[in-house]
Amino acid sequence: MKQSRMYIPTLKQTPSDAEAISHQLMLRAGYIRQVAAGAYTFLPLAWSVIRKIEAKMRKEMENVDAVEMRMPAILPADLWKESGRYETYGDNLFKFKDRHDREFILGPTHEETFTSVVKENLNSYKKLPIVLYQMQAKYRDEDRPRNGLLRGREFYMKDAYSFTANKEQLDVIFNKMEVAYRNIFDAFGLNYRVIIGDAGAMGGTDSKEFSAIAGIGEDTIAYSDASDYSANLEMAASKIEKLPAEEHKQIEEVDTPNVHTIDALSQLLDVNSSRIMKAVAYMADEKPVLVMIRGDYQVNDIKLKNILGADFLNEATAEEVTDVFHSVPGFISPKGMDTTDITVIYDSSLEGLDNFVLGTNKADSHFINANFEDLGDEKPEFKDVRTVKEGEQSPDGKGTIKFTRGIEIGHIFKLGTKFSNALGANFLDENGKSQPIIMGSYGIGISRLLSAIIEQHNDENGIVWPVNLAPYQVHVVPIKYKDDVQKKLSDEIVDLLKNEGYDVLLDDRNERAGVKFADSDLIGMPIRITVGKKAADSIVELKLRKTGETIEVNKDELINSVKILLKNQE
Amino acid sequence: MKQSRMYIPTLKQTPSDAEAISHQLMLRAGYIRQVAAGAYTFLPLAWSVIRKIEAKMRKEMENVDAVEMRMPAILPADLWKESGRYETYGDNLFKFKDRHDREFILGPTHEETFTSVVKENLNSYKKLPIVLYQMQAKYRDEDRPRNGLLRGREFYMKDAYSFTANKEQLDVIFNKMEVAYRNIFDAFGLNYRVIIGDAGAMGGTDSKEFSAIAGIGEDTIAYSDASDYSANLEMAASKIEKLPAEEHKQIEEVDTPNVHTIDALSQLLDVNSSRIMKAVAYMADEKPVLVMIRGDYQVNDIKLKNILGADFLNEATAEEVTDVFHSVPGFISPKGMDTTDITVIYDSSLEGLDNFVLGTNKADSHFINANFEDLGDEKPEFKDVRTVKEGEQSPDGKGTIKFTRGIEIGHIFKLGTKFSNALGANFLDENGKSQPIIMGSYGIGISRLLSAIIEQHNDENGIVWPVNLAPYQVHVVPIKYKDDVQKKLSDEIVDLLKNEGYDVLLDDRNERAGVKFADSDLIGMPIRITVGKKAADSIVELKLRKTGETIEVNKDELINSVKILLKNQE
Repeated sequence: MKQSRMYIPTLKQTPSDAEAISHQLMLRAGYIRQVAAGAYTFLPLAWSVIRKIEAKMRKEMENVDAVEMRMPAILPADLWKESGRYETYGDNLFKFKDRHDREFILGPTHEETFTSVVKENLNSYKKLPIVLYQMQAKYRDEDRPRNGLLRGREFYMKDAYSFTANKEQLDVIFNKMEVAYRNIFDAFGLNYRVIIGDAGAMGGTDSKEFSAIAGIGEDTIAYSDASDYSANLEMAASKIEKLPAEEHKQIEEVDTPNVHTIDALSQLLDVNSSRIMKAVAYMADEKPVLVMIRGDYQVNDIKLKNILGADFLNEATAEEVTDVFHSVPGFISPKGMDTTDITVIYDSSLEGLDNFVLGTNKADSHFINANFEDLGDEKPEFKDVRTVKEGEQSPDGKGTIKFTRGIEIGHIFKLGTKFSNALGANFLDENGKSQPIIMGSYGIGISRLLSAIIEQHNDENGIVWPVNLAPYQVHVVPIKYKDDVQKKLSDEIVDLLKNEGYDVLLDDRNERAGVKFADSDLIGMPIRITVGKKAADSIVELKLRKTGETIEVNKDELINSVKILLKNQE
Repeated sequence: MKQSRMYIPTLKQTPSDAEAISHQLMLRAGYIRQVAAGAYTFLPLAWSVIRKIEAKMRKEMENVDAVEMRMPAILPADLWKESGRYETYGDNLFKFKDRHDREFILGPTHEETFTSVVKENLNSYKKLPIVLYQMQAKYRDEDRPRNGLLRGREFYMKDAYSFTANKEQLDVIFNKMEVAYRNIFDAFGLNYRVIIGDAGAMGGTDSKEFSAIAGIGEDTIAYSDASDYSANLEMAASKIEKLPAEEHKQIEEVDTPNVHTIDALSQLLDVNSSRIMKAVAYMADEKPVLVMIRGDYQVNDIKLKNILGADFLNEATAEEVTDVFHSVPGFISPKGMDTTDITVIYDSSLEGLDNFVLGTNKADSHFINANFEDLGDEKPEFKDVRTVKEGEQSPDGKGTIKFTRGIEIGHIFKLGTKFSNALGANFLDENGKSQPIIMGSYGIGISRLLSAIIEQHNDENGIVWPVNLAPYQVHVVPIKYKDDVQKKLSDEIVDLLKNEGYDVLLDDRNERAGVKFADSDLIGMPIRITVGKKAADSIVELKLRKTGETIEVNKDELINSVKILLKNQE
């Protein structure tokens, strides 16, 4: 392809409003342009990479017997109301009405639509399993779209859905999908982790997240430094050290005037915060929930939501503490509270705690030396609703927990029967009994992947493409294309390479060598072939984008050299 | 591919609400399902054809040096307000607001967005020409979506845009595009005509439409039975016979009480309608226009709009005739009318007409024996605003005009500078002078094409795919896949064919032979290979979908036979 016929509007300056490196580079190297907040044009180079990503996905999806199809992006709102997600997605949904005033949304994902389309036909166990997928623009009205393609409002996804007759079939497909996803991300040279993810938002039972390690990532990954354990911080568990047991003392009420934080309470009473039983009041789907946790820990809202099976969760306002919990903000406590209509949850950090500090439901006073028997329940059921901290022990007992940042690039879910139940997608099993179809859903963020790969593959001069994804493997750059000798050799080289099946970009522009070289580094093809003064002797220079190494080769050795150099980089 | 893993929900009954054959067949053969009015799911077989259509387009676009990229579908409304199309598209635009109340549309086409993206960079004649294209879902809030994919609200388009420095560059690209489009439609075995199209709606100067001949088509094509002349009825011209000249008589006013139609007038006065000068009053962009035309012809609104350069055109209401034209409905006339603020247009059918009947702007009276000198303008400029009729002479003088129905499958436009002017897309020419970029736009309706091809390729048993587009070239149908011998031979045959590069579908379902054969005919692959009782002798039956011919062949001759049979059908 001749560069003069391509549209590659490189920029000399880094755009000031781009923070993520991938965002900066894609703007500077002429890969993308913003059309509206979170909505980007994929210029020819970016689109070429997207198409290579898609081609690899198709291959891997074929290995899972997944079949490609395509849903519309405009979806009737009704289906989403049926599944309940119209409400839970809230403002994140783009909503509109057609000329006849019928309500639509722009699809952020397609569980409802796939379920509703297949349910007419997948009515017997004989027709299962079936796996379908599509690659398509998706929509999410993000409150704050940012970092280019990392958090956009129109973005590309590969979304697959499996329909199975039983858990075993689901497990087989789920495991095959994990292998396919690993193959895909490995092929793209990504440094990523497979982590335990939050399945709750999708109503599922089990999920794995694929997270590309990157400082700009929005997800915190908690992983063990000595085992495979890896989880999204929202889901991570850990082992914590118990405090030494003490003999139970007599509970006592003490004055704690104007004390509104754990720190202040700890100071006033000269008690370590780990000996304070903290209460946090929530409203979950409009019902009151009181969470008790050790004073040195924080409640993890995602874990809590999943345990409650709640769609909406908010910390209770001062007004709600007064009116619904009949308590006093800052002094709330299960002791003495009428909990008939209140769900009380004890975090596992509290297990075995003695002689702790506790609220009294009265202003300016706390209990000291409280114990579980004072709460009327010596052995409550403890649950894990705690946010883990770095340095704690890995839950598998091996190593300690570290944190890193990651970009979610893929997610596989065992959905179970949430959607088939909501939409009535049933089949007759071997015994002629009607059962809900068991589903899975499997997503890869295609456009986000583009950003994640660039976050991991760049240097101070620009993008450094892995061979498998480069829009062109070879960039032929004549110093002077107007020079007959250089032109002839350049054209010959392009033909040679094309005959070998390589994608080749030829810089036929009438620009200074410095401009061409800078652009070449910026757009990032793996090999640059410079055709200059030695063209008369059929000698050109090969430069490796990744290492900067250069070698001179004769035209006759060229193909061989390119082959070896590219092979070494794969 | 095993059929049991595909999702092909065939139906026994033709859905009652589908009128077009292609719509019926795509539903029955499990190719599409409706998700909302005018929004369809492309099931695996349909999507496979779409991907084959796209692959052919990519190849042909490469020959035009057109480069693929991708725009978002959600577009800020502002750009469309700037170009004026926000208003002219009216209710056909899907409109919505994001969570911050900013106005968006779903793009029905992308002239504005492409222009606005490239204008920052295409600032010099050295960077031109550039041709960019995309293949993407497009949106149009049709008042009455119908006939499946023929008139949908979400549909797939290939839209290309050229940016050139002068008319010569535009002509070269326009002509190359026409060749590319012909290659594409020829490859798909389509019976189509390249006709003179209406460029007006796009603000362009010249356009050609590609129309697939089909009874269900919404376009009327006027063509010569003896030459290449072909035009959309909206644009078609013809030669009409002049009436014999007469000596001019004295104009005279006569009573014509309660006469409100040309027919009634013709009868009352015993004058042929071709001797009546009919007046039709319009409001064009809120300005009054009076069109005069021979009584035996109809005004063509599209031609009129283009001549006026108007965005909106409506026939004047009775009220407007009274208040704006100061005349009387049914008796309107340029004679005696104050036309200072009224545009008067004489259709060329009136050229040379003598002694005609004319309104008087008074109720219940007409002039007879009127002549142009009575109108104060003996030789007005005549314009062609007439709808042609079948049987008239072709405008090139060769043959007579016939009508047929067609489906618009492609359209190429010379846009000129409409969008570059509106959005300020300028470049510096060789002399350093700023000039607006000269544009072209080139569209193919991908999903509509799918319907058009099926309209032309079907029989009473189902779809009959052209070899180039069939989702699978060969359909292997074992009578009993559970039978070991049949299974072994079927699997061998599938492998043999795949090794030769064919796409093969294997019916591994546990269904009766009759059901399998009916489904096979319905979904329409070019060759069916039946593996039955003679499998023990390695003999199978080949059946040509198109002709119904069958032959028996041995496994060893199979590849050769398939090659020859498919080759013959290309």
